[in-house]
Amino acid sequence: MQEELIKRIREFNKAMDWDQFHSPENLAKSISIEAGELLECFQWSSQFKQEDACEELADVYTYALMMADALGVDINEIALQKLEKTKAKYPEERFRGISTKYNKLEK
Amino acid sequence: MQEELIKRIREFNKAMDWDQFHSPENLAKSISIEAGELLECFQWSSQFKQEDACEELADVYTYALMMADALGVDINEIALQKLEKTKAKYPEERFRGISTKYNKLEK
Amino acid sequence: MQEELIKRIREFNKAMDWDQFHSPENLAKSISIEAGELLECFQWSSQFKQEDACEELADVYTYALMMADALGVDINEIALQKLEKTKAKYPEERFRGISTKYNKLEK
Amino acid sequence: MQEELIKRIREFNKAMDWDQFHSPENLAKSISIEAGELLECFQWSSQFKQEDACEELADVYTYALMMADALGVDINEIALQKLEKTKAKYPEERFRGISTKYNKLEK
Repeated sequence: MQEELIKRIREFNKAMDWDQFHSPENLAKSISIEAGELLECFQWSSQFKQEDACEELADVYTYALMMADALGVDINEIALQKLEKTKAKYPEERFRGISTKYNKLEK
Repeated sequence: MQEELIKRIREFNKAMDWDQFHSPENLAKSISIEAGELLECFQWSSQFKQEDACEELADVYTYALMMADALGVDINEIALQKLEKTKAKYPEERFRGISTKYNKLEK
Repeated sequence: MQEELIKRIREFNKAMDWDQFHSPENLAKSISIEAGELLECFQWSSQFKQEDACEELADVYTYALMMADALGVDINEIALQKLEKTKAKYPEERFRGISTKYNKLEK
Repeated sequence: MQEELIKRIREFNKAMDWDQFHSPENLAKSISIEAGELLECFQWSSQFKQEDACEELADVYTYALMMADALGVDINEIALQKLEKTKAKYPEERFRGISTKYNKLEK
């Protein structure tokens, strides 16, 4: 289903002639902007409206897919690589059940 | 391949007992934080290092997948719905080739 | 004391020949990046380290002062103007004690 | 003039009974959200509308002042301290005229 979504996003951007705006830099800005709108759903409380949160998350996700295109990479592949890197930085025996960042953990 | 990635992310978080930290609110914060790190690749110039950009994009994407899980939704489905909404707000004949926001366009 | 701070920031940037990087756009990116680092102090909990939070807040504030310079405006003046605008949008009798955004309030 | 602004912000928040929402965590979220709105002025181009940029910068600045209050610190003092720290990390002879981050500079 992700393939179908990516296909439709590409078609839409082509039909709109919007690819000219989608440099990696502009997409990085766009992801930050949409991440801010997603965060706004939780600004004053951890209570939130499901519909609003889903819509803002969809925007972040869509721009992320477009950025992978702009960078010429497969987003699932780079995420798998990063997951392996994260596993190496956070060995289970030291970080299980704690949220401390790997470089902040007391020795 | 996205299914495989999501499966591995879930397994890792379960093994680490990290799901307790992954409330929608905390994930919204995490997406903003990682979006900032992605933006840092472009802070002073549109030039960037491909490897750094990919790694930060992977973080944004991974947290987005985790947030869809926390919200109990299918991320491709909500993105398809949002794409339809965007198409309705941006009719091709008015917005083709321009980057103006729908509510900022001169009449 | 703010005047003294602004003077020292300007002198430092001049001595470093860094003003060339400080376009409004680059400073807007920088403020988002530092805002993300400030938010990281609260990523997994509302508990935080005072020293870390102060340092990241200082970065946001410093870039905000630099951006006012780049825009050629007095930051206190634009903030006073915005405060008046906010007061007009949020009449006390309707918004006292509630955190709802002005355009989301039920009639 | 900053003193006068801070005084008026405090009075407004008191009159509105909004201080209850202004925890350091909520203000950190608010700064990120407003930073995203400021960045939106530059989303697709380095061209921007002065008035919009000033208004969003004012929001970032106002929340930064409120966060200093919430942390119980003097914002100019913490910024002066951070400036000294930055000067120590970026010696003029090595970083003059270059935008490389201190921990990314080639030896």
